Amino acid sequence: MTPDYQLIEIQTLASGDTLQIPVYTFQGKTGNKKAYIQANLHGAEIVGNAVIYELITFLNSLNSDEVQGEIVLIPMCNPTGVNQRNLFFSTGRYSPYDGNNWNRIFWDYSHENVNIDDFVRKNINLSKQEIQANFLKDILNKFQEKLDKINPYRGVSFSEDYRNILQSLSLNANYVIDIHSSSVSSIDYLYCFDYRQKSADYFLLDYGILMNKYDGNAFDEAFLNPWLVLEKKLSQARRNITFDVEAWTLELGSGMKVNEESVKKGFKGIINYLSAKKMLNLELITPEQKTKLIPKNTIKSYYAPQGGIIRHRLKEGTKIQRGDVLYNILSFLKTSITPTIIEIESADEGIIYDVSTNDTVNQGEYILGIFPHG
Amino acid sequence: MTPDYQLIEIQTLASGDTLQIPVYTFQGKTGNKKAYIQANLHGAEIVGNAVIYELITFLNSLNSDEVQGEIVLIPMCNPTGVNQRNLFFSTGRYSPYDGNNWNRIFWDYSHENVNIDDFVRKNINLSKQEIQANFLKDILNKFQEKLDKINPYRGVSFSEDYRNILQSLSLNANYVIDIHSSSVSSIDYLYCFDYRQKSADYFLLDYGILMNKYDGNAFDEAFLNPWLVLEKKLSQARRNITFDVEAWTLELGSGMKVNEESVKKGFKGIINYLSAKKMLNLELITPEQKTKLIPKNTIKSYYAPQGGIIRHRLKEGTKIQRGDVLYNILSFLKTSITPTIIEIESADEGIIYDVSTNDTVNQGEYILGIFPHG
Amino acid sequence: MTPDYQLIEIQTLASGDTLQIPVYTFQGKTGNKKAYIQANLHGAEIVGNAVIYELITFLNSLNSDEVQGEIVLIPMCNPTGVNQRNLFFSTGRYSPYDGNNWNRIFWDYSHENVNIDDFVRKNINLSKQEIQANFLKDILNKFQEKLDKINPYRGVSFSEDYRNILQSLSLNANYVIDIHSSSVSSIDYLYCFDYRQKSADYFLLDYGILMNKYDGNAFDEAFLNPWLVLEKKLSQARRNITFDVEAWTLELGSGMKVNEESVKKGFKGIINYLSAKKMLNLELITPEQKTKLIPKNTIKSYYAPQGGIIRHRLKEGTKIQRGDVLYNILSFLKTSITPTIIEIESADEGIIYDVSTNDTVNQGEYILGIFPHG
Amino acid sequence: MTPDYQLIEIQTLASGDTLQIPVYTFQGKTGNKKAYIQANLHGAEIVGNAVIYELITFLNSLNSDEVQGEIVLIPMCNPTGVNQRNLFFSTGRYSPYDGNNWNRIFWDYSHENVNIDDFVRKNINLSKQEIQANFLKDILNKFQEKLDKINPYRGVSFSEDYRNILQSLSLNANYVIDIHSSSVSSIDYLYCFDYRQKSADYFLLDYGILMNKYDGNAFDEAFLNPWLVLEKKLSQARRNITFDVEAWTLELGSGMKVNEESVKKGFKGIINYLSAKKMLNLELITPEQKTKLIPKNTIKSYYAPQGGIIRHRLKEGTKIQRGDVLYNILSFLKTSITPTIIEIESADEGIIYDVSTNDTVNQGEYILGIFPHG
Repeated sequence: MTPDYQLIEIQTLASGDTLQIPVYTFQGKTGNKKAYIQANLHGAEIVGNAVIYELITFLNSLNSDEVQGEIVLIPMCNPTGVNQRNLFFSTGRYSPYDGNNWNRIFWDYSHENVNIDDFVRKNINLSKQEIQANFLKDILNKFQEKLDKINPYRGVSFSEDYRNILQSLSLNANYVIDIHSSSVSSIDYLYCFDYRQKSADYFLLDYGILMNKYDGNAFDEAFLNPWLVLEKKLSQARRNITFDVEAWTLELGSGMKVNEESVKKGFKGIINYLSAKKMLNLELITPEQKTKLIPKNTIKSYYAPQGGIIRHRLKEGTKIQRGDVLYNILSFLKTSITPTIIEIESADEGIIYDVSTNDTVNQGEYILGIFPHG
Repeated sequence: MTPDYQLIEIQTLASGDTLQIPVYTFQGKTGNKKAYIQANLHGAEIVGNAVIYELITFLNSLNSDEVQGEIVLIPMCNPTGVNQRNLFFSTGRYSPYDGNNWNRIFWDYSHENVNIDDFVRKNINLSKQEIQANFLKDILNKFQEKLDKINPYRGVSFSEDYRNILQSLSLNANYVIDIHSSSVSSIDYLYCFDYRQKSADYFLLDYGILMNKYDGNAFDEAFLNPWLVLEKKLSQARRNITFDVEAWTLELGSGMKVNEESVKKGFKGIINYLSAKKMLNLELITPEQKTKLIPKNTIKSYYAPQGGIIRHRLKEGTKIQRGDVLYNILSFLKTSITPTIIEIESADEGIIYDVSTNDTVNQGEYILGIFPHG
Repeated sequence: MTPDYQLIEIQTLASGDTLQIPVYTFQGKTGNKKAYIQANLHGAEIVGNAVIYELITFLNSLNSDEVQGEIVLIPMCNPTGVNQRNLFFSTGRYSPYDGNNWNRIFWDYSHENVNIDDFVRKNINLSKQEIQANFLKDILNKFQEKLDKINPYRGVSFSEDYRNILQSLSLNANYVIDIHSSSVSSIDYLYCFDYRQKSADYFLLDYGILMNKYDGNAFDEAFLNPWLVLEKKLSQARRNITFDVEAWTLELGSGMKVNEESVKKGFKGIINYLSAKKMLNLELITPEQKTKLIPKNTIKSYYAPQGGIIRHRLKEGTKIQRGDVLYNILSFLKTSITPTIIEIESADEGIIYDVSTNDTVNQGEYILGIFPHG
Repeated sequence: MTPDYQLIEIQTLASGDTLQIPVYTFQGKTGNKKAYIQANLHGAEIVGNAVIYELITFLNSLNSDEVQGEIVLIPMCNPTGVNQRNLFFSTGRYSPYDGNNWNRIFWDYSHENVNIDDFVRKNINLSKQEIQANFLKDILNKFQEKLDKINPYRGVSFSEDYRNILQSLSLNANYVIDIHSSSVSSIDYLYCFDYRQKSADYFLLDYGILMNKYDGNAFDEAFLNPWLVLEKKLSQARRNITFDVEAWTLELGSGMKVNEESVKKGFKGIINYLSAKKMLNLELITPEQKTKLIPKNTIKSYYAPQGGIIRHRLKEGTKIQRGDVLYNILSFLKTSITPTIIEIESADEGIIYDVSTNDTVNQGEYILGIFPHG
């Protein structure tokens, strides 16, 4: 089957050139669920483009009766981010225009002045499908209302315009998968929301971070949070529903890298997930082991206690015990005649999941992160 | 009187050099209130250093019995920010290390898991002074508790370390004044919190923004917000108190500029404010007119509807009517053979309070802001 | 008359989007000279786009018999440069990829291993027109030879590819005009090459810098230098020729600004120049005064002797005497308890022609420039 | 033996803080030669700091009679460069103030308006030692003359001030070693000047680039070039002398990395070189194989022929034949519905010596470099 291909304009540049995003849509013969998969929201996190390329190639090889519903794929979803450079470094993590983290700009319906309690009262006795449809309608109406309010003279900031484009393509999806990588050097893992732990295993990854603490307005969170709020309020009203709506962020390896192992894992995991969700008629791979989920608020981050040069830093994936030497700092402090070396020990037991790719630090720069008891 | 002078180390750099902040403290013979004044939290917003220089010079000329309490002055309060360059541009608005806006990193006691209701119950019958003292003690204890929890091996991010230093110097103040300027080209104005409108006029500025909407974790807000929360809860418990605690952000002119008019206004306003607060034994200037306060959520921002070159943009301070032409965009869109000029009309009546200093824009970049009915 | 309009692709971006430059060509009914005019080679120097817009509008209003030869106009000639941002600052003075100054990358035929002495021997007895034609042929052949050598697998750096595109459009011109502005805040002036002083006045500007010292590989210089080398060698062989080939860089006002006065001056000067060169059948304006040419190696630059805040800096256009106070630095040096103010006096008599737009400096940053005896 | 330790101030910052460089001097009991070794001129090239640390530790363990002459060591020789960040990337390759490549700013005596022919005439009959002493005196006098001409009001740009400091410490050395690394990912190699090939082997590295083509004003080149010019002119006057003056740039591994293997190689090579030069009384290691020197103008660089994502790129150190696939580009060009993969074959036989560390490219970005026949 061949996808529908659409180019959506996202920005005219000062020069008069235009940036666009490509949208590949595979439409199954039957089924009405929707999966939305994007890659490269942060400029340096490019690996997902290769995953999407493999997905397109694979889906091209299927017949349309092997796909249920609609699968939307957006590689290179942030041209501004991926094209940005300082020397050869990919520095497109933040908007150059307003400093916003590209993954903290999204609209969360539940942050609007809306009365979800009222919605619950009115819908409590309807079927799960009806409630899901009605709530989606409310979300889309409110979203449209906000679009309609944009004054053509005032315009909108690029961050807002851009988020509106991505969310207009994804708000009505059932499954949202946002493929990132670490910005530094990292193992593969995913972000999992509370009440969606059961599906995490389908991605066949060893580790996940359980989102028990939100930064706010991330793409996955802005999509799923309203549904989680609704589920909670329904539950308080003694109606326990888990809607067929999920959001995932995959972290596949390191920034500025296309690690082919990570590409394979990402591809395999997504295919398996879509099969589990009955959007692909493929045999499901039963995970050999459960994805170990680490509560976000328990993750330990290490920062340089002083400026200098890092030596002998342990690598991502290393299991460590309390007291193990994680790294050394060699400093030529101007207050000391002799250069000094400080050994930094681990205050934690666990697994190192990511490490900074720069071996020189100013005080307070990031060194590495640990999944405790990982 | 001469101030106490102290240097506080804030960061050792990779090179082994050290950044410090200077703290000037003028201690009056009597009085126990504290005013804390800092400048240059954002790298480009340098004007406040000149204001503080004028304040130091002026306070030097007073006797210690002309000052009541303690006045703490920190110019160049963010060395990392002010030293940062891209070409000759001051780009230090965000931390280069983690992308955080330097003025969105501060700790807000009321965001902690603390039971203010319980505090209200226990303190409701005490005097205003006692309540203020007890609440301050709780804030400082919680702050210290967080400092104590920092593991020396894990360290802390520079953003967190830096905020801890500034807040350790200011959390126990009565009056906090954070001198900024616009990052672009701007008139002089201030930010005023709800329930503090009465004091705004003492600064003798024409305009202010009324903070009816928070971004979160700004320096002024993180300082005052816990007190506003407490006041609200006391009020709900039928005890109406306005504590002798205030926070102000002054916006004195434009980024990368020391406008001497703005320096004079800032100096005069602060002296007058401190006199009004009885920290200086000087004659109070009665404001000729009240500071016009514009609710933050009513401010109108204009963004470029397409990329190109800005011509004939109106200047900050211009009064405008709906339909007035605010600016033109000259575009050489690659989709059009002939270059185009678009006239952008105002959708609002009011006063232009700031305008971008760059006459070229990509779509969605900031153009200007309007105080409606200003 | 309407121009021919052509879009030339200059770069495919990581995202798959494409940057192009627009080429407007006005072809007169008769005449075979060529003028080539471009704008915005440095990202922040946008004013020339407005000048070219005014030129297009004006030429549109002429009949094709009012134009002799070919006038080629390229606004927004460097999309990479003009679109680049750090916050709202236009930082596109250097290539983000290799750090090259966009105006130091151009190919200079005379730097090739070519035997111009031999050319002189063979052509010494030909007419001026024949020599000019033969030398141009040699330049274009060598240029083509270099293009032909590019291996498709090895590719070329973007700097090289880009210069090839601009030079393929301009090497065969008679008159090259490259419209810049100062990157800081500046009066209007031009750059004039030796032996071309006579034509400078036609641009009707008060000041010019006489290029008696080259940086190397600037656009204007790379174009004209081979001709100047040839003229010198012919002169040594007792044949004095000034070829009908000229190159000019106009500096119209300040960076990031479209100063409408500068636009008018630039437009008027170029029209007058083209009239003087008989490419436009318009009445020539006789300059009221000659352009004062300042030898490049006599210009005086002032740099901050220490870090701090600049106050009371004189403005561009100010006439100054030796000993005049140019500016003050307010410093909060950590080695001094009291802040210090240093007055910097002028070591020169002349006119201030540009000043930095940032009022804060690290030691060694640029403050202002003086045309001595200007 | 313990070194003399000196801190030299290089810049006061806007904030009032100061940057310094540390100078470690080991003075042997006897001998009058001088070796000057610095590290980290480019911000990302940090490995040399670890090499210098190992050298300091080693020299500390020697007695002063084991050292002949003076060994000067400057780690962290460019604080501005090493401290600079964009996110966690070390972007300090160019001065943020003027865009100059930190290693293209140095003063070359032979570029001055000096008459070396005259020097040759006057010195031709003196001994090698006398000529060397006289020429050094001329260099130092001219250098001092330039310093004396600096007007305190005009000041100098930071680039010039900084170069003056480093060159005042090194111009009178016999041996200059500047420890860099590649800015990307690279094997270890060195830069060798013509007529100094014999000494290259002492560094015990497999590869070197023979400097048959100069960029101009690099640290090593600015130091050695005047001597090479003198040697050439003496040779033309039939006096063949190789002065006891050498300059080396070592490239030890990759940017932002302290590869411990590279540290060991660098340390071992420098110790061996100093032994060969009789500055250390240690047994000389005879190189097992000669350093293979690749003429600079034969090196092949590969640049992306279009924008996209790099996959399957060969690694540094790989031997390749003509026709081998070097890498693939995956592109989502907006002009093509289906994503495309291009295989790039090698046009050269040799060894890949460095590769870019970013797997995403805009057209014209660097991919890798090949030492042909390496």
